[in-house]
Amino acid sequence: MPAEQPPKTAEARLVSVRAIVFDTFGTVVDWRSSLIGALEEFGRKTGVEAAWDKLVDRWRAAYEPNLRRVRTGELEWTILDQLHYFALVKLLPEFDLTSLPESDLRFLVTCWHRLSPWPDAIEGLSRLRKKYIIGPLSNGNLALLVNLAKFAGLPWDVVFGADLFRHYKPDPETYLGVCSFLGLQPEQVMMAAAHNYDLKAARGLGLQTAFLPRPTEHGPGQTTDLAPQEEWDIVADDLVDLAEKLSA
Amino acid sequence: MPAEQPPKTAEARLVSVRAIVFDTFGTVVDWRSSLIGALEEFGRKTGVEAAWDKLVDRWRAAYEPNLRRVRTGELEWTILDQLHYFALVKLLPEFDLTSLPESDLRFLVTCWHRLSPWPDAIEGLSRLRKKYIIGPLSNGNLALLVNLAKFAGLPWDVVFGADLFRHYKPDPETYLGVCSFLGLQPEQVMMAAAHNYDLKAARGLGLQTAFLPRPTEHGPGQTTDLAPQEEWDIVADDLVDLAEKLSA
Repeated sequence: MPAEQPPKTAEARLVSVRAIVFDTFGTVVDWRSSLIGALEEFGRKTGVEAAWDKLVDRWRAAYEPNLRRVRTGELEWTILDQLHYFALVKLLPEFDLTSLPESDLRFLVTCWHRLSPWPDAIEGLSRLRKKYIIGPLSNGNLALLVNLAKFAGLPWDVVFGADLFRHYKPDPETYLGVCSFLGLQPEQVMMAAAHNYDLKAARGLGLQTAFLPRPTEHGPGQTTDLAPQEEWDIVADDLVDLAEKLSA
Repeated sequence: MPAEQPPKTAEARLVSVRAIVFDTFGTVVDWRSSLIGALEEFGRKTGVEAAWDKLVDRWRAAYEPNLRRVRTGELEWTILDQLHYFALVKLLPEFDLTSLPESDLRFLVTCWHRLSPWPDAIEGLSRLRKKYIIGPLSNGNLALLVNLAKFAGLPWDVVFGADLFRHYKPDPETYLGVCSFLGLQPEQVMMAAAHNYDLKAARGLGLQTAFLPRPTEHGPGQTTDLAPQEEWDIVADDLVDLAEKLSA
């Protein structure tokens, strides 16, 4: 009978990581400030007045319920750009914006393609890229993520959008799909996110996990994801600190 | 009755290109010289003697028949790494290599992940990337293409492997899949390749086309794809010349 393998140390486990995939909205880019800025600029240019900051928060609030409708099968597979469009249309009466022409709605949806990275993102990712395969694993669709990477200068090796899997996180198909496409075992892949739910799903499938809090992602009054809810494999201050902790 | 739209000029059509996808083996990387070099080095290190250059040509000759078996449904979906493995195993008796251990076979298959770019590739792609979304559209699987890009320094924005579509070129699902994932119309996407068959398929679906000959891809005696077989939208000497012709 072969001797039982001793469990790997945390260090030995980290050594096996070959690829790191990153949640994007909130973890890599500051969607809220970027969108408020873009919508306010739209307002100035068009002379349309609205409570743009409140609209952004309401728009984002529609995100999880809409993803859930797809995840439960209530709604057929629909990419995030389209969900953003549906949600915006639904919010127009509340913000007295029903007279906005279709072309403006389309423009506003594409504002999600032009979001600024957090100040540490480019340096952190550039360092991590030298040692690991890096890419987003986001609920954004591929076109959105590619446009965003070009806009923000995100140095990805590969781009995983939810439309590659026709599933949204935290469905297992997304995390396991990444491992399969990269030809790696789950423990060779690390999920990095500012959201505990995302890491919990990834860990449940055998991926390694890195948490970095983004305490102002949802604005000054944020109450969620301020701290790690489990002992994730790594807890870092930001993406530069993650590179530091991985000696990248 | 609305007046009929005049057909777009070639120039107006080119202006609409937003993304360029590249055949990779042969078009971007010099697979033959790279593989011969890698296999010869393997031979020196292991003391195994074989006609390595002939093996490479025979290995590549198995490529199209194997893809065809998948494309016709005779073989279920199988990624290129696995097809390379099957083909290599089949060639072992012919080259008196049946004693090679499994680990060596696995190593030899991964030599396809480490191929050198043609001398013009990095400069040409880097220039094109400033103006367009660029990525491979290759029959390689995603893991192979990502490893290859890291090895060769290919500055892709996005990576399209055949396993994203579970189809091999020239199946329409590959070209149209790219357009769909990028949220672009076929005429906004250009296929660049050193192979006429690839461009013929892409053009048939409405994509734009760029041909660049690689007259030594198959070695000094190459007889195929030495010249364009149709009036492709662009014919360039190499990837730097393609950038030049697209003012990138």
